Amino acid sequence: MIVETQCSRFDSISLESGATLAPVEVAYQTYGKLDSEKSNAILILHAFTGDAHAAGIDHETGKPGWWDNMIGPGKAFDTDKYFVLCSNVLGGCQGTTGPSSINPATGLPYAMAFPVITIRDMVKLQRKFVASLGIERLLAVAGGSMGGMQALEWAVSYPEMVRASIPIATTTRHSAQQIAFNEVGRQAIMADPDWCDGNYYDKKPPGRGLGIARMVGHITYMSDESMREKFGRRLREKEKLGFDFNVDFEVESYLRYRGSQFVNRFDANSYLYITKAEDYFDLTNGSGSLAEAFERGETRFLVISFSSDWLYPPYQSQEIVRVLRRLNRDVAYSDLQSNYGHDAFLVDVVEQTDLIRGFLASTYRAVYA
Amino acid sequence: MIVETQCSRFDSISLESGATLAPVEVAYQTYGKLDSEKSNAILILHAFTGDAHAAGIDHETGKPGWWDNMIGPGKAFDTDKYFVLCSNVLGGCQGTTGPSSINPATGLPYAMAFPVITIRDMVKLQRKFVASLGIERLLAVAGGSMGGMQALEWAVSYPEMVRASIPIATTTRHSAQQIAFNEVGRQAIMADPDWCDGNYYDKKPPGRGLGIARMVGHITYMSDESMREKFGRRLREKEKLGFDFNVDFEVESYLRYRGSQFVNRFDANSYLYITKAEDYFDLTNGSGSLAEAFERGETRFLVISFSSDWLYPPYQSQEIVRVLRRLNRDVAYSDLQSNYGHDAFLVDVVEQTDLIRGFLASTYRAVYA
Repeated sequence: MIVETQCSRFDSISLESGATLAPVEVAYQTYGKLDSEKSNAILILHAFTGDAHAAGIDHETGKPGWWDNMIGPGKAFDTDKYFVLCSNVLGGCQGTTGPSSINPATGLPYAMAFPVITIRDMVKLQRKFVASLGIERLLAVAGGSMGGMQALEWAVSYPEMVRASIPIATTTRHSAQQIAFNEVGRQAIMADPDWCDGNYYDKKPPGRGLGIARMVGHITYMSDESMREKFGRRLREKEKLGFDFNVDFEVESYLRYRGSQFVNRFDANSYLYITKAEDYFDLTNGSGSLAEAFERGETRFLVISFSSDWLYPPYQSQEIVRVLRRLNRDVAYSDLQSNYGHDAFLVDVVEQTDLIRGFLASTYRAVYA
Repeated sequence: MIVETQCSRFDSISLESGATLAPVEVAYQTYGKLDSEKSNAILILHAFTGDAHAAGIDHETGKPGWWDNMIGPGKAFDTDKYFVLCSNVLGGCQGTTGPSSINPATGLPYAMAFPVITIRDMVKLQRKFVASLGIERLLAVAGGSMGGMQALEWAVSYPEMVRASIPIATTTRHSAQQIAFNEVGRQAIMADPDWCDGNYYDKKPPGRGLGIARMVGHITYMSDESMREKFGRRLREKEKLGFDFNVDFEVESYLRYRGSQFVNRFDANSYLYITKAEDYFDLTNGSGSLAEAFERGETRFLVISFSSDWLYPPYQSQEIVRVLRRLNRDVAYSDLQSNYGHDAFLVDVVEQTDLIRGFLASTYRAVYA
């Protein structure tokens, strides 16, 4: 399945902050075919550093999509049955308008003149994009981590447009600890002199700061146990401790490498804006009442968490499930046993596949019942 | 109890790396009185960023010691009964020789010419210091976190000199995750252009890098729950989200403040050397066998962990206890219920006090039985 990223353009979008962004572009990919009733569309929502290339082999880079093990013929999101869409989020750096896009007012990249965006803004833009394809109602929205926040926000903002929502390894609002980890990443970027208040697009990007932010991220995506299994205390390219500050342990080498590579594919300002959107996310919109948030609509839910995920711990998913059950909503929940920590939704896909396949099939049957 | 830091000087010390450091100074404080048999001395071992000022009110700064709630008349380490000592670790920056000390070969601070040191080296220097006071055998050694590593190392390297060891919230070797968090801190410091390869002593120190390292540290010292209780999602000095990159949440403000203050009291190069010593620490000395490490001596143990400590999780303490029990050694263990995370050994002291008081009393009785 060779895939290509396409682009849609919209005149403008008004944002939660009160600002207006005009014009706005959305980069997206599609897999499978939209049926004649336009009833088989599933919107996949990517995590923080993801992009529109969720599945298949990219015709330019030759690389598989970030959820290729979940999307395709016969897979959880079966492209023989469903029309699967994925778009890059607002504020991103992979084709959709973000801080690295050209500001029409200046002819230069927005940089920090880009307005602060929210998860609700991301979903609002996705709705424009989905509507532009003539799709009035999605069979499902699904995503992990920040993708799960969007899946929840869809069900709350546009319940009439979503038959089913699959939030995975996510939360309805960031805890102090989650905000704290994001803040470390932002501070690392802004402390890098190459950041230049965000105006680095014609020079060297703040690679050291972004690299450190990414290193922190990687630690939080893995579990204590998965790090031990992957690295232990194994030494790198030597038999003894070096008694110097070069790399001794494999885990150091891995983190330095992943940190330094990240700058080649991700924009530091997008890092700032998207982490801020995560931290601002509050599904209750400030009311504090999840029950109120979920009041409207008949969206079904499949909520999934992973036992070793300490970044988005299972108790955060369980809070969602408790409220939905109290409201007598149709909700299935599974806390999957996994050692992979938060990364589990990307790698530990066997049970996840079974759950999602069954949930989508019953949702689809209900449409045509 | 007004206290003063004193200083001892030694000709030289040979290090695990093969290097020799000469001369070496040790900053220390003492509380209580050494009895005529010199049998009531307890050495307190400080954690990563601690210092010799463990208890009482410093006569210069007017500040209480870092474990003042545990050391003093009638407290866990009862200075009416015991002679309590605490020295700054080798490689530190609070009086004991470290990278900010003058290198006699150049007349300038060592900076990165300081040799890489280990926990074993720290303990070796402490032994010199203890011996210089004419103390042949310590009633106990005790410390939390990196202080606990030293308490373990004392019992393994010099079992004949230690009647009892109290390792708290610690491990026999750093896991990949613990190394990874330290590596992030080191990279943040070394990425700061003000670090200048360590040669910043006559100019601005690398405060941004050190601040970020400290922010990461603070997150790992607290638990998800204690952060939630302390900060929640409370906003700082405003009623609404700012839709900008200034501080929104209290937790952001706290971390930025603590990070920026740290540079006033801690040397960035010491941060590098001491975290490396932690990462190198392996009580088995590479053999992989804790049973071999604990083979010699008759030191008694009181091992303490805290339920919500995810930086040095209870399972790491339990591994120590299992091995000691298998060896039929005298070991008491308690996993204390606490919400404070790793910080618990500094703040949650009621139960800890009871445990330590009783353990020390029975150790002392055994000496005079």
